[in-house]
Amino acid sequence: MGGGFGGLEAVKALARSGAEVTLVDRHNYFLFQPLTYQVATGGLAPGDIAVPLRHVVRRHRNVRVIMGQVTGIDCARREIVVEHGPAGGSDALHLAYDWLVVAGGADYSYFGHEEWRSRALEVKSLDSALEVRGRILRAFEAAEQDPARWEGWLTFVVVGAGPTGVEMAGQIAELARQTMVNEFRRIDPAQARVLLVEMGDRVLAGFPEKLSQRAARSLERIGVTVLLRHRLVDVRGDAVELEVLGDEDHQTIPTATVVWAAGVTASPLAGMLALQSGAELDRSGRLAVEPDLSLPGHPEVLALGDMVRVRDPETGEPQVLPGVAPAAMQQGRYAGRLLRARMRGRPGPGPFRYRDKGSLATIGRARAVADLRGLMLSGFLAWATWLGVHIFYLIGFENRVVVMLRWAYSYFTRGRGNRLITAAASAGPIQREFPPPG
Amino acid sequence: MGGGFGGLEAVKALARSGAEVTLVDRHNYFLFQPLTYQVATGGLAPGDIAVPLRHVVRRHRNVRVIMGQVTGIDCARREIVVEHGPAGGSDALHLAYDWLVVAGGADYSYFGHEEWRSRALEVKSLDSALEVRGRILRAFEAAEQDPARWEGWLTFVVVGAGPTGVEMAGQIAELARQTMVNEFRRIDPAQARVLLVEMGDRVLAGFPEKLSQRAARSLERIGVTVLLRHRLVDVRGDAVELEVLGDEDHQTIPTATVVWAAGVTASPLAGMLALQSGAELDRSGRLAVEPDLSLPGHPEVLALGDMVRVRDPETGEPQVLPGVAPAAMQQGRYAGRLLRARMRGRPGPGPFRYRDKGSLATIGRARAVADLRGLMLSGFLAWATWLGVHIFYLIGFENRVVVMLRWAYSYFTRGRGNRLITAAASAGPIQREFPPPG
Repeated sequence: MGGGFGGLEAVKALARSGAEVTLVDRHNYFLFQPLTYQVATGGLAPGDIAVPLRHVVRRHRNVRVIMGQVTGIDCARREIVVEHGPAGGSDALHLAYDWLVVAGGADYSYFGHEEWRSRALEVKSLDSALEVRGRILRAFEAAEQDPARWEGWLTFVVVGAGPTGVEMAGQIAELARQTMVNEFRRIDPAQARVLLVEMGDRVLAGFPEKLSQRAARSLERIGVTVLLRHRLVDVRGDAVELEVLGDEDHQTIPTATVVWAAGVTASPLAGMLALQSGAELDRSGRLAVEPDLSLPGHPEVLALGDMVRVRDPETGEPQVLPGVAPAAMQQGRYAGRLLRARMRGRPGPGPFRYRDKGSLATIGRARAVADLRGLMLSGFLAWATWLGVHIFYLIGFENRVVVMLRWAYSYFTRGRGNRLITAAASAGPIQREFPPPG
Repeated sequence: MGGGFGGLEAVKALARSGAEVTLVDRHNYFLFQPLTYQVATGGLAPGDIAVPLRHVVRRHRNVRVIMGQVTGIDCARREIVVEHGPAGGSDALHLAYDWLVVAGGADYSYFGHEEWRSRALEVKSLDSALEVRGRILRAFEAAEQDPARWEGWLTFVVVGAGPTGVEMAGQIAELARQTMVNEFRRIDPAQARVLLVEMGDRVLAGFPEKLSQRAARSLERIGVTVLLRHRLVDVRGDAVELEVLGDEDHQTIPTATVVWAAGVTASPLAGMLALQSGAELDRSGRLAVEPDLSLPGHPEVLALGDMVRVRDPETGEPQVLPGVAPAAMQQGRYAGRLLRARMRGRPGPGPFRYRDKGSLATIGRARAVADLRGLMLSGFLAWATWLGVHIFYLIGFENRVVVMLRWAYSYFTRGRGNRLITAAASAGPIQREFPPPG
């Protein structure tokens, strides 16, 4: 279950295997998550980076898709419980399984401040990205009408300087300084402040130090204020409080827009599986699985992706793999191959091994950093690599062409075609009756 | 005020006029409304047919844009009241004017059954189109999980056989029979029933009778059931009740999805203006304006578009113009020219005259009808004309290229790239605190 990078690869590996495969996901689409931040800043449309799951597996006649939320797993009875969305009524579906692959992913963690979750925004799902887009655009609208408080409206705080945080901060800065030029009469969008708040002592901590420095310099150049060794003390609806690590003084910064991109907390499915197997959970709620991704004591249940740590075959220690698409995809493919072998009574491949293919992060127009197994790139070349890789892995011919076109257009004009404030972002959403028919 | 076809043309005509122009609209974007139904059926993305208003007028330094809802007009004090959205707090803005152009448009009318409004769906705004898209796709998901009631889930009722109703019915039929093929395992999407309910005795009543007949035949051929001389007696959340005109018997049809595209009720702004001027309102709430579009007794206030009837300069009788984009655009341009002249103390152009350039409606892939001032086309040629006209009038180079590409893709593959169920369509929308900062 789970139609993300890992789950979908597992399903593809099991297509034409003779097995009856059921794919369960909350959404009706696969989301190319690494580009969600571009939807949040108006560069791409939602449909450019999402494909209906049914469409992806339409030719695999042995694969069935169910749109619903997994609310229970019973490893003893080998059964999961799926709740439908509002359209399907509230009947829960009980699905029996012989083999189960759990790829539930992870969410951001608020480090024990759950109350911040409702005050900060995220760019994890498509819906949350559309909300961010609406909120950023509305902040500019509000500043234009409410010039007395323009500084608060036009201060954007991004928390966490991993790839998503860096990319978001860079995109907001470009949106304000390049795209919106000439569009306002009472405010100057280029006055917008983008603060990138990071507890550690460098941005992109997963990259070599030299690239972190280059990325920080690029960010400053396009107008992002990088605040290293800064910690959030409070996130209010209208301001944040910051402290410099090791310093007692708090600083209060009025802002209407806080984008959260820090911390990891595994899907609640990890906890469900831990309860039933006694498997270890770490502080981020990640499940420790065997070197073959199986749940301890349950070889018929595999778990993978951001919700697990995989035990090293030699030391037995659980390892955290990078929370990136290639890691999840490799695990998904591995799970598929393992199950195909086991179903035929064969032992299957040896323990799972992650092959690091390198890391990429964009900062802005023609600016990026790339660490390709020791080969370090930055600037235009890294950006071109980034473009190529992302176009290549996008699913769907139409999406590839449209995204290329939008990026070309936006590269030459600095425009962004998808700056719409739609209802997902508004406070007064539409509520309608929707009972089952007949 | 009003950033639709009429309002925007008026603003463009007043750009570089030396006047200070303020454009007020509820949304931050101009919507190319004739293609909204394609968003509702997954063929186009919202951003393909909408452009930020600020972007459209960015080069007109004398034009200011305010995103907000007009809640009051005071013709005596020459002032309007604008409420901001949630982002701007609840402060109402009072704007003084010397000249006022009101282009508020119209909504569908439920013929006195206001309770049906919350049970039926519309494809008027972008938000409502996204809701329709989600509801149609969810109905297929629900049918797959709830096969006992598949007939209700897969019955789609479209009310009103004007261009929008015809286009929606055709698109739903193609979505079910062509796009979704192979994507389901327990239901056959091609079994979906699309009912087009019309009180009159032909579809597309605004077209010559011959074209109406051809359109009806085309609709039947792609799988739409055309129910002429049928009237809705009740719209429940889970079914509709129909009667044949002149017949006592009611027929109950289980359905989860009713799309409303019938009747006209003018924007409430028409009523506000009528109250202050004593101008006549017709049954649809349309304001009767003078031959120069001005409010009786208030030459400084012009009203135009779907919310008005224009008095004939000879007979003095108010005339209803077709509710199509060219009519609104012509009135907007006229209003702009008139005001430019009046500001300079000149009398300006004579009374407004509508030039009918013909009518177009698509039915489906390579099927359309066109009435070009007597030249009647149907089939591929009409469809090609329709394509050309719509691409030509789309705003924005990027949008034109993307839309052409999507249509080409969809023509050859029958695919639709934007079949996403996003939060705007779900019953549990995100609610967040959003106070002003600082």
